Amino acid sequence: MPGYDAPIRELRFLLEDVFGYDQHTPALPGFEEATLDVVMAVLDGAATFVQDVLLPINLPGDAEGCRLADGTMHTPKGYGQAYALYREGGWPALASAPEWGGQGLPPSLALMVREFVASGSMSFGMYPGLSQGAYRAILAHGSEELKRIYLPKLVDGSWTGTMCLTEPDSGSDLSRLRTRAEPEDDGSYRLTGTKIFISSGDHDLTDNIVHLVLARLPDAPAGTRGLSLFVVPKRIAEDLPGASAGTQNNVNTGSIEHKMGIRAQATAVLNFDGARGWLVGKPHGGLRAMFTMMNSSRVGVAVQSVGVAEISYQNALAYAKERRQGVAPNAPGAASQPGTDGRNPIIDHPDVRRSLLTMKALVEGMRAFYLDAALLLDVRAARAGSPEGEDAESRLALLTPVLKSFLSDCALKVTDLGIQLHGGHGYVHENGMEQFYRDARIVPLYEGTNGIQALDLVLRKIGLDDGRVFESWLASVEDTAERAACVASLASMAAAQRRASARLRDATAQLRAWRDGNELDVAGAATDYLNLFGLVALGELWLRMAQAAHAGRAQHPQLAPFYNGKLGAAEFFFQRLLPASETHFEAAMSGAQALMTLRAEEF
Amino acid sequence: MPGYDAPIRELRFLLEDVFGYDQHTPALPGFEEATLDVVMAVLDGAATFVQDVLLPINLPGDAEGCRLADGTMHTPKGYGQAYALYREGGWPALASAPEWGGQGLPPSLALMVREFVASGSMSFGMYPGLSQGAYRAILAHGSEELKRIYLPKLVDGSWTGTMCLTEPDSGSDLSRLRTRAEPEDDGSYRLTGTKIFISSGDHDLTDNIVHLVLARLPDAPAGTRGLSLFVVPKRIAEDLPGASAGTQNNVNTGSIEHKMGIRAQATAVLNFDGARGWLVGKPHGGLRAMFTMMNSSRVGVAVQSVGVAEISYQNALAYAKERRQGVAPNAPGAASQPGTDGRNPIIDHPDVRRSLLTMKALVEGMRAFYLDAALLLDVRAARAGSPEGEDAESRLALLTPVLKSFLSDCALKVTDLGIQLHGGHGYVHENGMEQFYRDARIVPLYEGTNGIQALDLVLRKIGLDDGRVFESWLASVEDTAERAACVASLASMAAAQRRASARLRDATAQLRAWRDGNELDVAGAATDYLNLFGLVALGELWLRMAQAAHAGRAQHPQLAPFYNGKLGAAEFFFQRLLPASETHFEAAMSGAQALMTLRAEEF
Repeated sequence: MPGYDAPIRELRFLLEDVFGYDQHTPALPGFEEATLDVVMAVLDGAATFVQDVLLPINLPGDAEGCRLADGTMHTPKGYGQAYALYREGGWPALASAPEWGGQGLPPSLALMVREFVASGSMSFGMYPGLSQGAYRAILAHGSEELKRIYLPKLVDGSWTGTMCLTEPDSGSDLSRLRTRAEPEDDGSYRLTGTKIFISSGDHDLTDNIVHLVLARLPDAPAGTRGLSLFVVPKRIAEDLPGASAGTQNNVNTGSIEHKMGIRAQATAVLNFDGARGWLVGKPHGGLRAMFTMMNSSRVGVAVQSVGVAEISYQNALAYAKERRQGVAPNAPGAASQPGTDGRNPIIDHPDVRRSLLTMKALVEGMRAFYLDAALLLDVRAARAGSPEGEDAESRLALLTPVLKSFLSDCALKVTDLGIQLHGGHGYVHENGMEQFYRDARIVPLYEGTNGIQALDLVLRKIGLDDGRVFESWLASVEDTAERAACVASLASMAAAQRRASARLRDATAQLRAWRDGNELDVAGAATDYLNLFGLVALGELWLRMAQAAHAGRAQHPQLAPFYNGKLGAAEFFFQRLLPASETHFEAAMSGAQALMTLRAEEF
Repeated sequence: MPGYDAPIRELRFLLEDVFGYDQHTPALPGFEEATLDVVMAVLDGAATFVQDVLLPINLPGDAEGCRLADGTMHTPKGYGQAYALYREGGWPALASAPEWGGQGLPPSLALMVREFVASGSMSFGMYPGLSQGAYRAILAHGSEELKRIYLPKLVDGSWTGTMCLTEPDSGSDLSRLRTRAEPEDDGSYRLTGTKIFISSGDHDLTDNIVHLVLARLPDAPAGTRGLSLFVVPKRIAEDLPGASAGTQNNVNTGSIEHKMGIRAQATAVLNFDGARGWLVGKPHGGLRAMFTMMNSSRVGVAVQSVGVAEISYQNALAYAKERRQGVAPNAPGAASQPGTDGRNPIIDHPDVRRSLLTMKALVEGMRAFYLDAALLLDVRAARAGSPEGEDAESRLALLTPVLKSFLSDCALKVTDLGIQLHGGHGYVHENGMEQFYRDARIVPLYEGTNGIQALDLVLRKIGLDDGRVFESWLASVEDTAERAACVASLASMAAAQRRASARLRDATAQLRAWRDGNELDVAGAATDYLNLFGLVALGELWLRMAQAAHAGRAQHPQLAPFYNGKLGAAEFFFQRLLPASETHFEAAMSGAQALMTLRAEEF
């Protein structure tokens, strides 16, 4: 069975050495008590929960899967108990508003906890994870009555939430959603339609589930502007107007999706057969309300990506140190001599190191990237409405598609290398490596496919506030490179980063020039542009980590091994991973002509 | 359920337009009757078998999997009947020697049939596929008696074969294999040890299984030079000396491997508990005999890679033409107008086309690559012992690690894109796309991991005959580019190819310069070098295909759509895929320093 040691040390390094956390979040109104010491204590508790409770049920839960029998959805053995312990630990309430029973801790802390949970069991993390979206949507757009009924239950975890968007004919394109909502006399609505791929759509962890459902009112205009958002509980709360006590709503589980991975996650087809619902926000204002859920979910996907990549890396590293095969060429940096049987641990083989360093450079870069964004979430939460809060909001809006897509693609790369590094042992269930890949395979697909994210980036996000949001972010990236260039041992890394960020600047200018009249070129460039953006973003964070490690090593020579690891991974990133930015630049700039010449029947 | 239409038209194009098949194989002694017409007729038969018999059992067989119960290994429903039909059709005997009951058709034809079979069910294809290795090993190294007993049964498919190499502690590194073979008075041996990951290791398709087992004689020297090869039947044939009639041998199935994919393939742990075996070849000559099996298996892996990638591509393409989402920018090459509901089929979206063209350019390039090698197999078979045969043998030896690794990596890319293109529908079992990926995930792992192949390429293969084998291959690659450069519309493709092949030439020179004293740099460059090699190899074949399509279109204007497809894919390959060769070149040439600085505990 795979092992897991929560990356507490990594997070301390990022918070303390790289991001200067104590000068940041505890300086924000409302988060004064969330000092680094408090954060580390909470993370210690989360680590214990994940290691003791989640890790043991992850591999067996994958084998067992969820099961729909006699109309009841059964989660695998141990998931019910784990969820009860999760609630007992107060984990669902961590970053929620004290007004509704929450602990009011910073969003960044909640995301770090989510990373650990995703390492322990991605499937498990999605049960409370989806509740976050429902909580936010009702908090932001719900009536006082809806808040009073639902928020305390979502915050203490006694109910979980879902997002019911996708229908068989409408996935990436929500304009054709067909689910209908008919008004009742008492102010409620009757919803009719079928929703597919509903994560946590039905399960036995809680006695109620709060579905947030996109549907059309009778007078709705066509397209996405005609969507409204409704809260549709699995069981109708007894004190809702006009409903009998806690009765079963007409939400029926049509089937369970048979998925490649996250098999302990009950993903369902839900049939709304005149189910009772209540409007959240304004009529036809569903899309805006939905994006309140969606954007938080997309950052959540980035965090999941890190969690699943981390556990894959940890187990690949442990295996590479332990497994002995072949005799390695004499390596200056190799820690180990051939053992008594004359063979080296495979970590001594250069090609194995190439894989391990790729994993390390990606996982640690990914974590820095989401944490950087998480600190913006703290600002947004604490400074809502102020210019500072709006700046944080805009930068988050810009980075969200990159966080979602680039990190989810990285998660596939890392977990794929984790399989490959284990040889045939990576292909069998018992070692867990193939499960990590299968679980990770969902992240580039859900909450908007990565292709859709790339279009969001090139069509909307880089043009936010007439390009000023992008410009301000890129200026900070260039500034980091400028500062790193002053440290002699980091100069070549900084030079590589400068070349890549200049490419990103040029590509962005070209995309903006193409916007009127060359829409095909813009769309054809989207994915390569996003990858270029992601590499530059990771480069910026690796430069900051390298600078911090360089300073840290001078200050704490006894911690040299840790800091050396950071510097070695940084060097590898700039020498071996960042250069792909050049290929992505060329591809993005080559235009759509080679994509569009063939007619469909010529394929 | 996924569809499949065997790529008969593709093969005809390659054989007729690109490789001039009729001037090649039927001109070889022994293959005079294997004309293009005969080949196409056989392929038609194979297509029918695969479409009618294999395709329907592939998806259900994955869901059901193999099952070990009461000591018997059960294959999924329909596999027994399919195997019986496969035998009835005479498919196992296609390319085997008439002397042993075979049809004596060219190896190239058998490989094309294997491609179709791998599309229909990769799991199924491995049952007869492994028999090929056993057949070759006994044919090349077995005594007359062993040949007489085993070859007819392997050729008519009444028995299947296995390769028993891997042990729990020895995978990539066979030097520490522990299975022992003790001589008996009657000339047979008693084998004791455990073998893992044995494909087709136990099953209910035939009443006997012929295990080819690597083991050590009592006086064996240490390391791989102390390995001998034995044939160890599941049931001892009645006419073997000193054995009672058809008795069960002491080969016991310890367990079934729970694999990520190829779940209808019975992969077993086998315990040899004093099992009776007979020596194949010379004592301590096992490694050489094993490579007779292994090399043919590695080309087989390349062919499997194409098969699984092809069916993924076909289904992605069909989905892209049918699924309507969103409104595409107005595209000159788009075949379709938005439908009645105002949405375009997703094939009209540039980013979807980028994925489809990647799949098309890879799959069709992969097929050309294996077929090019397959025609060398024809020469080797027909001209064994002659200089021409030896040239073919050497070139095959050079290309084998590239075929195995590069094509298996391509299979992962293609099947991964097949999932992504389907959005969430790609993640559920019913659509088959995720099965293709899971099945494909084995190909970079088995028959020597891709990392091991890369080392074989840089440490041995490029140095074959003091580099002359490589030089002769590269000269033919350069020659192709020279000829293509003369066709105006192909000139820019040829120029791109020349740049890439010049990089390969430079990289090869550097690796040879590093060979003495810079072994770490050589090993650290291996995988990137192999990828560079693979891209150049595919580029050569795409240039040949583009030339043939260019000529074909002029000659047969009514077939323009087909030839346009080839030219469009070629253009895409040179513009969007080949440029990665630059990144691989830089990485390979950057040396191992960045890989080796960290000590193991600094990771």
